[in-house]
Amino acid sequence: MKIVEIAEFLNGILIGEGETEINNIASLDAAKAGEISFLDKADAGFSTNASCLLVPENFTAETSLSIIKVKNPKLAFAKIAAQILPRKHNFDWHSSAVISEDATVKARFIGAFATIGEHTQIGEDVEIHDGVRIGKNVSIGRSTVIFPNCVIYDNVSIGENCIFHAGAVIGADGFGFVRDGANGYVKFPQVGTVSIGDDVEIGANTCIDRGALGETVIGNGTKIDNLVQIAHNVKIGERVVIASQTGISGSTVIESDCVIGGQVGMGDHATVKTGAIIGSQAGVLPGKIVRSGVWWGTPVQPLDEYKRQNAMVKGLGRLREEVKEIKKKLTEK
Amino acid sequence: MKIVEIAEFLNGILIGEGETEINNIASLDAAKAGEISFLDKADAGFSTNASCLLVPENFTAETSLSIIKVKNPKLAFAKIAAQILPRKHNFDWHSSAVISEDATVKARFIGAFATIGEHTQIGEDVEIHDGVRIGKNVSIGRSTVIFPNCVIYDNVSIGENCIFHAGAVIGADGFGFVRDGANGYVKFPQVGTVSIGDDVEIGANTCIDRGALGETVIGNGTKIDNLVQIAHNVKIGERVVIASQTGISGSTVIESDCVIGGQVGMGDHATVKTGAIIGSQAGVLPGKIVRSGVWWGTPVQPLDEYKRQNAMVKGLGRLREEVKEIKKKLTEK
Amino acid sequence: MKIVEIAEFLNGILIGEGETEINNIASLDAAKAGEISFLDKADAGFSTNASCLLVPENFTAETSLSIIKVKNPKLAFAKIAAQILPRKHNFDWHSSAVISEDATVKARFIGAFATIGEHTQIGEDVEIHDGVRIGKNVSIGRSTVIFPNCVIYDNVSIGENCIFHAGAVIGADGFGFVRDGANGYVKFPQVGTVSIGDDVEIGANTCIDRGALGETVIGNGTKIDNLVQIAHNVKIGERVVIASQTGISGSTVIESDCVIGGQVGMGDHATVKTGAIIGSQAGVLPGKIVRSGVWWGTPVQPLDEYKRQNAMVKGLGRLREEVKEIKKKLTEK
Repeated sequence: MKIVEIAEFLNGILIGEGETEINNIASLDAAKAGEISFLDKADAGFSTNASCLLVPENFTAETSLSIIKVKNPKLAFAKIAAQILPRKHNFDWHSSAVISEDATVKARFIGAFATIGEHTQIGEDVEIHDGVRIGKNVSIGRSTVIFPNCVIYDNVSIGENCIFHAGAVIGADGFGFVRDGANGYVKFPQVGTVSIGDDVEIGANTCIDRGALGETVIGNGTKIDNLVQIAHNVKIGERVVIASQTGISGSTVIESDCVIGGQVGMGDHATVKTGAIIGSQAGVLPGKIVRSGVWWGTPVQPLDEYKRQNAMVKGLGRLREEVKEIKKKLTEK
Repeated sequence: MKIVEIAEFLNGILIGEGETEINNIASLDAAKAGEISFLDKADAGFSTNASCLLVPENFTAETSLSIIKVKNPKLAFAKIAAQILPRKHNFDWHSSAVISEDATVKARFIGAFATIGEHTQIGEDVEIHDGVRIGKNVSIGRSTVIFPNCVIYDNVSIGENCIFHAGAVIGADGFGFVRDGANGYVKFPQVGTVSIGDDVEIGANTCIDRGALGETVIGNGTKIDNLVQIAHNVKIGERVVIASQTGISGSTVIESDCVIGGQVGMGDHATVKTGAIIGSQAGVLPGKIVRSGVWWGTPVQPLDEYKRQNAMVKGLGRLREEVKEIKKKLTEK
Repeated sequence: MKIVEIAEFLNGILIGEGETEINNIASLDAAKAGEISFLDKADAGFSTNASCLLVPENFTAETSLSIIKVKNPKLAFAKIAAQILPRKHNFDWHSSAVISEDATVKARFIGAFATIGEHTQIGEDVEIHDGVRIGKNVSIGRSTVIFPNCVIYDNVSIGENCIFHAGAVIGADGFGFVRDGANGYVKFPQVGTVSIGDDVEIGANTCIDRGALGETVIGNGTKIDNLVQIAHNVKIGERVVIASQTGISGSTVIESDCVIGGQVGMGDHATVKTGAIIGSQAGVLPGKIVRSGVWWGTPVQPLDEYKRQNAMVKGLGRLREEVKEIKKKLTEK
């Protein structure tokens, strides 16, 4: 792709030479001739051997590089990267895969030792990698990629253009038991399912449990990191981001466009309202309603309050000194 | 199953028509004709299309539904669900499975690409799903179900009626190293094993490490959620519940009938006494003894103390104001 | 191995009989005749049926046992254990394994249903267990052991003498997205790789993501426990220990010889300097520089400060009483 074509694709303003072919993407410091990189902030110092740089619109520094001014260089870089380095497609169905005769499979790629159960429907352009287990009555939309050794239990429904990283487990039984006195626990039925929308990405070894009676739902465009736990009957909206090792307890609702940090813990039946941002390691109590805004700490509080409180705790030594001094003064009188 | 039969099975009091066949279970709001649901509290408002409802004994509302009064409706629902919707059994041994000639295997189901090592003993009615790895000298009791891609290392012993969800890893080496100065770490031997009782459920991608020299033990009736870490030589009693993403460090003891929340962290060589309840995200220091009662926070304290302390921290701003005012008064004098 | 040979191997001082054959290792209380154990502290009471005991140099108690005085008994025990009970080697390549014709594989053992991709290079003495997935262009150094159902993505590089426990996922895409307004998230390219040194141990179901553009790096001799998350572009030095369920965010640097507890969370672009020790459940904010020393809490503070602050919070009730009394006194005047 020529630099001038990239500028056109990104709807950016090209300054400098435009005929050089760009064949790779790279970070600023690692970039070599023939490669494109980006500069996040106009006033950041930089040195690079890239042939082309995506820069913010207010970029003014003198440079001999070809630069393309765009509104959001990092976003533009992500978009052009997908053009220059499209994910390599895998083809063919490996002869060792065990595919039920009752399944309707149009996948582009099925890896070695994959298994696909009865009445399962798999769309066009799908990639099912080595050792993936897909149960019965599963449906998977077109162009979804499922990396090795993932397990999709029976009756799960997955949309189009999703990515599931290795070892993810979708649709295991939720964790529900009823105490029966001295006899211990009786398993509460876990006969619901999981419904995952389009353009969802699920991280490696992440677990999404099936609903106890109803569904666990993950909305379109939601991105979930590695080692995350989503319990039974959780409802997650669209374009939600959940970082690694966060755990969401049963029946909790996360509305659209929320951002949840890493290692956050949420009790059951909580609600996180549209657009809320919850900082890493925060704890949300069961039943809590978290309004829009930025939240932090355990139990979660608005970030400002958290900071104020943290400062006060840090100032406890001084407060104690002050009280000591007052007591001394009062005694001296 | 007719409603009257359900009432009889549950030892409940049927009020209303009893001849309707119940063929499914459902939540209150999703239930349709021919389905049974339950009401947790007598005074909760509800509307449902279920044909039969399990209700508490003190339920008095007028309704045209068939109701069955029971002591614990949720427990009764769990019990009748297992009758109406028994877990579907899988049958047959897939021809691709690799089973050692020296193994003694009576399992009802062995999935595709499963592997079973030498001298391993597997009881009747067991299900070993696709891609499960079972090492050498393993023993698995009757009616246990092991879902796809679980890994059971050598010498592990598992009881009857257990359920292992996908991706669980039982018997990996414990995390033990001894520092050898500038040379770094020498691996401490991890040659013990894991012993798991009857009626245990283990969540997806949960890890239970083998003992370093002795055993890691999980008692009868204990239920462990997804992504939990159980370190070497941990001893867990009977009927213990451990929620998702909790981690238990080496040699810690959890006695019977404890309930441990999600994302709890326990240091090594701690002891949690019978019946203790530990809230989510709590932290137990190494060597700590946690008595019976409800515990919260890091480091754990009795819930009441935790709440009192939390309230005091929240009241710090006011305290500071008070001290400021006192100082002002003293200066004014 | 005779006791006298063990003393010689460990460079220790043998007191007592030296001709007995030692054929097993055990803990103090479980040890039987013919077995060796160790005593960590010279003044600890003990009773054992072991035939030989490794003890500290300042051990003085009278005993009829054969004892070997060494500088560090636990270290000596770990070293001799590796002699007496070497890890059992597996041999042969299972006929079901799918190995690319373009791969260069010298491994000693390849398990059933393992898959190895194109242009991958695997050294001598390597063990690839059942169901392991190894992508394209991977390199694995000699004597490394990869336990069942691990997944190594394309282009990952792994050193010699490493151990990967079951279900570990190396090289999945990092978690990087750029918000594109109402359209949701665009995937930031994750085209880097993972480079793992020699003598590294990786726990079960641990995830190490590939670099976005550059590399994620794990240095020689580093040991990582189960269920740990290492994000894209993290750089971890040599001889670092990371306990279970810890999560390290993108581009964070952990220098050599650090010890990181369990369930620690680190924000992105943080730096942990050589030799720092971070306590379990601690939280490191993004961009934070953690100097050498012992750290604790969220956000991390030096352990002394953490303890002082904790004590002050616990003393809040008394402080409040004091202020109340002062106010009372002032009013009385």
